Amino acid sequence: MKDYIHKVQYYETDKMAIVHHSNYIRWFEEARVHWLEQIGCTMESIEAEGVGIPVMSVTCNYHSMVRFGDNVAVKVKIGKFNGIKIEIEYEITDVKTGELRTTGSSTHCFIDSEGKLISLKKSKPEIYEKMVAGV
Amino acid sequence: MKDYIHKVQYYETDKMAIVHHSNYIRWFEEARVHWLEQIGCTMESIEAEGVGIPVMSVTCNYHSMVRFGDNVAVKVKIGKFNGIKIEIEYEITDVKTGELRTTGSSTHCFIDSEGKLISLKKSKPEIYEKMVAGV
Amino acid sequence: MKDYIHKVQYYETDKMAIVHHSNYIRWFEEARVHWLEQIGCTMESIEAEGVGIPVMSVTCNYHSMVRFGDNVAVKVKIGKFNGIKIEIEYEITDVKTGELRTTGSSTHCFIDSEGKLISLKKSKPEIYEKMVAGV
Amino acid sequence: MKDYIHKVQYYETDKMAIVHHSNYIRWFEEARVHWLEQIGCTMESIEAEGVGIPVMSVTCNYHSMVRFGDNVAVKVKIGKFNGIKIEIEYEITDVKTGELRTTGSSTHCFIDSEGKLISLKKSKPEIYEKMVAGV
Repeated sequence: MKDYIHKVQYYETDKMAIVHHSNYIRWFEEARVHWLEQIGCTMESIEAEGVGIPVMSVTCNYHSMVRFGDNVAVKVKIGKFNGIKIEIEYEITDVKTGELRTTGSSTHCFIDSEGKLISLKKSKPEIYEKMVAGV
Repeated sequence: MKDYIHKVQYYETDKMAIVHHSNYIRWFEEARVHWLEQIGCTMESIEAEGVGIPVMSVTCNYHSMVRFGDNVAVKVKIGKFNGIKIEIEYEITDVKTGELRTTGSSTHCFIDSEGKLISLKKSKPEIYEKMVAGV
Repeated sequence: MKDYIHKVQYYETDKMAIVHHSNYIRWFEEARVHWLEQIGCTMESIEAEGVGIPVMSVTCNYHSMVRFGDNVAVKVKIGKFNGIKIEIEYEITDVKTGELRTTGSSTHCFIDSEGKLISLKKSKPEIYEKMVAGV
Repeated sequence: MKDYIHKVQYYETDKMAIVHHSNYIRWFEEARVHWLEQIGCTMESIEAEGVGIPVMSVTCNYHSMVRFGDNVAVKVKIGKFNGIKIEIEYEITDVKTGELRTTGSSTHCFIDSEGKLISLKKSKPEIYEKMVAGV
């Protein structure tokens, strides 16, 4: 599984001249979407099936600062996944130096087009299997 | 019509230690939504009628810098409005000093729930009348 | 201590028609800045003293969805605080219904103008005392 | 000069299920920064020389909608440039279909580290020359 590469944008910085801490949560999402693409089920195709993947929780630990001009690699690792809930872990490092920047996690459930919780395993086994294979 | 007041947020600044220029476009939207509330037809109620108000164009002129800790007032003025297209002008000033910060404009059309252009005047005269009265 | 009130903006929503999960991290910041104002030491005055308050970690748990048109109240509660590190907890509820929307936390350290870790208690006792009094 | 490619992110969408109009202003910036890299003077190197390039104005015309899952190409074209003020034009098209999505422009001046207007041509001729060559 290839790391997701993000190029830091000027608009992502704040007046401390570093990346604003809220943006890492967005980079986690970018990397998650990229992971789904790589395992062959894009977010668009999942939503086309009427399935949503809302975020239940996030955590983020800031180890060292990221600045404009940096490129970062986001590594995605799937944790517990039972078809009802999925845990994803993220590790962000600097592309040039390899230095650790940020670690974090997110948990997600699956909902149908009416917003009701579903078991992906039961309702959409073909998506479930791709995710399991992609872990 | 009361001005819309926006308190500048830390996350709206960039590494030049001023508000990032893209955020003014968002403040225009905040002021537009506030104007709709004041004339008695909220954006929610408009969307509940199946009407969308997409942005066709924006312009923004940056006269002087806005910084974290500032409060700004956004004045909304309706320009040409024929029921098919609406032009809105914005003027942003510092609340404390009254100094001019930004001027700008946006134009919008009206679409139905299928994304087709509509005449608000013909399709939703009750919304149209409120807008005309609120100019 | 008064709750911080945030009015949900259109640009804060995403294609699921709910507030994008990254924005809550920004609302935590808004509430934090508001808390500092209320205890009499604004973020601007702290930065004017050469002190930065970087974020070391955040967590956020999404209990129920927030939508455009909602107003939310953010309650801030100070956890452990020893002058070197501060823990802050957040609880977001809907203003109209009181329903719980989100809980979360952030931890912060204090740095001087050269980016070095400081003890706020030792370096800036007058800020430290205000924070302790405001807990 | 290569077009700048931007992959649309989930967090860039809004509840109309299209990209929020403010984000195009950010994509213009991404393309501008990319153009500077390609002509051999990165934004970082310019700022390291004590030079800032604030935005004086932007315009944006939305021709057709951009959605999550799309990739867009941003073409940058330099307009009038006299060393004191630079005009930049942007054209955004869909990567797959080539369809026109957005056109726009920005104007910029140049400031020194104290925020005073400068002539890039006089103060930093080596940067000026690269920009002229890269037009």
